[in-house]
Amino acid sequence: MAIRTIVWGENVHEQKSKIVAGIYPDGMHQTIADALNAAGGIDAETATLQEKEHGLPESRLAETDVLIWWGHAAHKDVDDEIVARVCRHVWAGMGLIVLHSGHFSKVFKALMGTPCNLTWREAGERERLWVTSRSHPIAAGLPDHFELENEEMYGEPFGIPEPMETVFVSWFQGGEVFRSGATWRRGAGNVFYFRPGHETYPTYHDGNVQKVIANGVRWAHNPAARLTDPEAAPNVPVEKALEPIEARGEKLHADGEEGFR
Amino acid sequence: MAIRTIVWGENVHEQKSKIVAGIYPDGMHQTIADALNAAGGIDAETATLQEKEHGLPESRLAETDVLIWWGHAAHKDVDDEIVARVCRHVWAGMGLIVLHSGHFSKVFKALMGTPCNLTWREAGERERLWVTSRSHPIAAGLPDHFELENEEMYGEPFGIPEPMETVFVSWFQGGEVFRSGATWRRGAGNVFYFRPGHETYPTYHDGNVQKVIANGVRWAHNPAARLTDPEAAPNVPVEKALEPIEARGEKLHADGEEGFR
Amino acid sequence: MAIRTIVWGENVHEQKSKIVAGIYPDGMHQTIADALNAAGGIDAETATLQEKEHGLPESRLAETDVLIWWGHAAHKDVDDEIVARVCRHVWAGMGLIVLHSGHFSKVFKALMGTPCNLTWREAGERERLWVTSRSHPIAAGLPDHFELENEEMYGEPFGIPEPMETVFVSWFQGGEVFRSGATWRRGAGNVFYFRPGHETYPTYHDGNVQKVIANGVRWAHNPAARLTDPEAAPNVPVEKALEPIEARGEKLHADGEEGFR
Amino acid sequence: MAIRTIVWGENVHEQKSKIVAGIYPDGMHQTIADALNAAGGIDAETATLQEKEHGLPESRLAETDVLIWWGHAAHKDVDDEIVARVCRHVWAGMGLIVLHSGHFSKVFKALMGTPCNLTWREAGERERLWVTSRSHPIAAGLPDHFELENEEMYGEPFGIPEPMETVFVSWFQGGEVFRSGATWRRGAGNVFYFRPGHETYPTYHDGNVQKVIANGVRWAHNPAARLTDPEAAPNVPVEKALEPIEARGEKLHADGEEGFR
Repeated sequence: MAIRTIVWGENVHEQKSKIVAGIYPDGMHQTIADALNAAGGIDAETATLQEKEHGLPESRLAETDVLIWWGHAAHKDVDDEIVARVCRHVWAGMGLIVLHSGHFSKVFKALMGTPCNLTWREAGERERLWVTSRSHPIAAGLPDHFELENEEMYGEPFGIPEPMETVFVSWFQGGEVFRSGATWRRGAGNVFYFRPGHETYPTYHDGNVQKVIANGVRWAHNPAARLTDPEAAPNVPVEKALEPIEARGEKLHADGEEGFR
Repeated sequence: MAIRTIVWGENVHEQKSKIVAGIYPDGMHQTIADALNAAGGIDAETATLQEKEHGLPESRLAETDVLIWWGHAAHKDVDDEIVARVCRHVWAGMGLIVLHSGHFSKVFKALMGTPCNLTWREAGERERLWVTSRSHPIAAGLPDHFELENEEMYGEPFGIPEPMETVFVSWFQGGEVFRSGATWRRGAGNVFYFRPGHETYPTYHDGNVQKVIANGVRWAHNPAARLTDPEAAPNVPVEKALEPIEARGEKLHADGEEGFR
Repeated sequence: MAIRTIVWGENVHEQKSKIVAGIYPDGMHQTIADALNAAGGIDAETATLQEKEHGLPESRLAETDVLIWWGHAAHKDVDDEIVARVCRHVWAGMGLIVLHSGHFSKVFKALMGTPCNLTWREAGERERLWVTSRSHPIAAGLPDHFELENEEMYGEPFGIPEPMETVFVSWFQGGEVFRSGATWRRGAGNVFYFRPGHETYPTYHDGNVQKVIANGVRWAHNPAARLTDPEAAPNVPVEKALEPIEARGEKLHADGEEGFR
Repeated sequence: MAIRTIVWGENVHEQKSKIVAGIYPDGMHQTIADALNAAGGIDAETATLQEKEHGLPESRLAETDVLIWWGHAAHKDVDDEIVARVCRHVWAGMGLIVLHSGHFSKVFKALMGTPCNLTWREAGERERLWVTSRSHPIAAGLPDHFELENEEMYGEPFGIPEPMETVFVSWFQGGEVFRSGATWRRGAGNVFYFRPGHETYPTYHDGNVQKVIANGVRWAHNPAARLTDPEAAPNVPVEKALEPIEARGEKLHADGEEGFR
């Protein structure tokens, strides 16, 4: 069964900037979705900031295996309730791929627990991505490195928690380095950050970049049933303890009472 | 120089429950602070929810090396602005120790990026903590295991990101297990979660528990200068690139402009 | 295509002990292989210590996706050359599952770089395994915990490197705990350690245990092409540098010379 | 009390190469030891391959807090018994810093469990090391990056297990990147790998490099008492179980018998 994927695009610069619109006439999200649909085994649709509930109603996320997130100019316009909803779905098992300037999205920062900051320079310089984790599924079919002739520079220190696995590290022409592919698990959800994708360059038309994102979707997909309540903190009554015990000492809670949150 | 430490206590049950007040007449926070001050090399004070700004004004956090957090019934009453302030100080280098029911505090959840949930039972059962990381500084001076005859049970799965190091795992009389001591780094700040400490038992009077918390303070202390702005994302202008480059391609940002956040 | 799997069994106690032979008339390895073949998508064979090259010639490992290892009494009899061969195949992409007393096998110790020691007791006590990583593929189809009524106890501290992910933690009737399911990556190879399986109990006839091992095979399988030489350290000549550079300074090596090893 | 440190040098090229002897007339090990002794709080001595037991008798390692390892041309000449001895001391709590070409030393490979391979080029090119873990103690007192005008290139993929923390990532003039500072824990011992130090360049005379190594010594030092037997696997008799149990089922071992290894 195909992996049900949503490519979420902020869709702001595509509307405001002739440069961006020229490279991505249907939006970056559509270019990415098209590439995923061509990759095989993935059924990709799009959603944008401007849609009702940003195109991410509860019912739709419940039917989504992997969400891809690209945002830049309008991070602040993303509704906090939708952010919390996305996080809950990740915790419950939905995969998440965060692209490029999405490092500063509310969703990514909330899931990392860190500032996710970096240094940057918009100079169209050369980026070379090196695979640091040999034969990692996210690097399937790639050479040991690949180049993007024009990209924005992102430099270390990258304000993230130590990744579960560092898959790519980038070299920049101007002298910086960056951990440009990294994975984490958050609850039952797999999270992958992938650096490239400044909107004034044709990065998402690049075959290697498309391959990484498709690999990322396959890697992030958790086929387990979505958890109903990933935040539940159930009380286990004394009489249902797996080993027989008797209650002792003083109690704060009445029997069967819910815990504090 | 002594490690400047604040023990933050919610201070609710000490006021409402005769049981808790009987065990901790001056509050759990004071008991913990007293133990730390007796441990050597630590200068511990307290702060509580009821104080102005919860006792955690910017100026005070700036002079604090390690913050210890105990909360339970009133997580929701903690001001979001103070939560953000504490997170910023952790990212900037302040150590943080989260105790027991603090697993559901806004501060801990924000720094972990996960639900931090668990199963629980208030039955005064026996807990036995095993050291899983031999000779870890947080376990200094401890035997390979120690017991608390009466504790609340917390059971797996514990909804945390995979720790940097798992220092303790607990055995419970009723049949559960729990990763009861775990570390993470968040930005420049060291974070340690330590499980024991239900308020109706005399846990914080226990010598081993006191030793772990004092060790935790020493481990969490980062002597580096506090970062001024742990969220900064500085632009590196083309003309200041470390390797000579020329700007190429189209640009979204005017020179010297701030990035989007 | 089915995952090509070898279950390697030491096959000593099955020959020497009537108890073990009674539980596993065809050997533990055959019981495990039968369960894997019944699980779907896995093509499992066996190999034993007594066979030529322990049943693991180069040509056979080259056609093996996942190797499962059970040993206990005869770790010292495993040929060092075969150990090195297995490690190379793991580094090159072969998955490895180490069972129970295999914690002290030469293969596991070589891949971990640690003593892999623990405490133990052979008393047929109850073990309860808790899933600590929700919805992890290795725990697919399992409840949140399961029990083995009679097992050998293994206790912490377990002398392993901090795992990539801790999937199970065990509770023992006699009061100990143990990280009984843990994963690592070594080169291109995925490694999973799973604790249960003392030979005098019918553990490998247990449905949950069989399910974990089959899940483990699927998780450990890396579909990438096996690396030809996972230990290669190629020289990159100056004239083939990706960015134009000129050689400067003094040299130790003549052009094209191999590096020291 | 000063941290008792041994700088182990292979001491081959210093004897054979006029270039190396010219830069390090007393050997690289002596230059490093001198810098450590000047750093404060560290008492550094040297040991070399040519000494009896390579200068690392059991009695001396027992009095050593941190061992620093530089080797290149003669990895194969290091006695396997000494390698095993060093590993045991690391597991028991001795800190270890591996420098540059020591990535291929027997000691480092044994502790990592991986090939530790990389790509390389000896062209005297520029290396720029970026701090990736802000305010990490190993980076204390350093700027956010520093340069070495002439160094050998080491390129990814670096065949190591995912580090506990990645402290530095290097940029190379010729287009490669490398995780040039990384930490692991092995048993009770802290391990730090630091990349720079090709013998034909004056790297160990560089102030930043010296600072990193001194910081590394302080970080790697574990003040806990050295473990007597880091490989022990003690049996816990039924009658000494922490919770009362009765032996059940069949047994392989007689009471009090040692386990298999």
